Amino acid sequence: MNARELAVSAEYVVAIETGDDWREAIEHVAEAEGVASAWFTGTGTVDDADVWHYDPASEEHRAVRFDEPLTVAACVGGVSAAADGDGAFARPHAVLTRPSGQAVGGYLNAATAVEGTVHLRAFEESFDQPTDATPEP
Amino acid sequence: MNARELAVSAEYVVAIETGDDWREAIEHVAEAEGVASAWFTGTGTVDDADVWHYDPASEEHRAVRFDEPLTVAACVGGVSAAADGDGAFARPHAVLTRPSGQAVGGYLNAATAVEGTVHLRAFEESFDQPTDATPEP
Amino acid sequence: MNARELAVSAEYVVAIETGDDWREAIEHVAEAEGVASAWFTGTGTVDDADVWHYDPASEEHRAVRFDEPLTVAACVGGVSAAADGDGAFARPHAVLTRPSGQAVGGYLNAATAVEGTVHLRAFEESFDQPTDATPEP
Repeated sequence: MNARELAVSAEYVVAIETGDDWREAIEHVAEAEGVASAWFTGTGTVDDADVWHYDPASEEHRAVRFDEPLTVAACVGGVSAAADGDGAFARPHAVLTRPSGQAVGGYLNAATAVEGTVHLRAFEESFDQPTDATPEP
Repeated sequence: MNARELAVSAEYVVAIETGDDWREAIEHVAEAEGVASAWFTGTGTVDDADVWHYDPASEEHRAVRFDEPLTVAACVGGVSAAADGDGAFARPHAVLTRPSGQAVGGYLNAATAVEGTVHLRAFEESFDQPTDATPEP
Repeated sequence: MNARELAVSAEYVVAIETGDDWREAIEHVAEAEGVASAWFTGTGTVDDADVWHYDPASEEHRAVRFDEPLTVAACVGGVSAAADGDGAFARPHAVLTRPSGQAVGGYLNAATAVEGTVHLRAFEESFDQPTDATPEP
């Protein structure tokens, strides 16, 4: 492991609105605020979800699609500069729950928001995030 | 989406104690410390849980009751002023796990704590949270 | 409940690397940085997981072993001084997901990392964490 100390540049509460893509909404905030890197946690409700799982053996992702309303019981992730240097790239992971309470989740590549609240801390320094397990889309 | 910048007023570690209601314990801290708004994450153990799921189609909640000990594997949420202006209202979402490891969760309306630790950041500014998906109880 | 105010000493992004034990990697950062206490959230991928569930009735833990690649959809926990005063003790809780999206989790006693990113806030003050539900290993 290695650890890098960060200095906070600003802290935000983000309201994700009906129809927003969950991941893009976070990226739009980062871009609008000129954020180099950030860390976030959040909760909410989505109408569907495109969830990825990284398989270390094949080094490939498996995507699972959920076409149903799901509660975002927990969302955690980082924002860094996009690989092409153009804009921000958010890597949200999420645990999503059904009306029965059953939980599913993984890397949340896309999801249509009903509503959401995300707490985001922006840092002065950029940092890289793993690219194997959460590749550029 | 929209983003609002926040200034931190204080940061706390909260020990939730045996018999506390998980949500009310967070609200009591916010009220005792005069917190206008806050964001928190936490873990712990509960003896039962009343979990809500918001259904966007009917705009209603479905409640599921778990009468069993559960590990709070992840809890994320915000605190804002109660709708009637009297006191604090916490909106915890949680992922809860059984001895088998199976995970359930959603909006954690109520739960009897065995123990818990919650990290809470309080802000100078108040902020609204979605009321459709996490209504006043 | 009771709440204790904390002063932040530093904030880090931790890259957990292939082969690291998830919990030990966090402890090593805390020890290397001389951290008295900390709170963290994280995401990643692991190759296996040893998950504990605390049973309040028997006051014992039940361990479940997962020998399969899992996505760390959410990890939340604290770091405090080890009970013997020698080094740091991290208490990560985690929600882990399978390729199908199915979520499992609990107290993450051990896990072999594929990769991970952990955001860690270190505090000036030490704080105790519950020892009943998350005992020293």
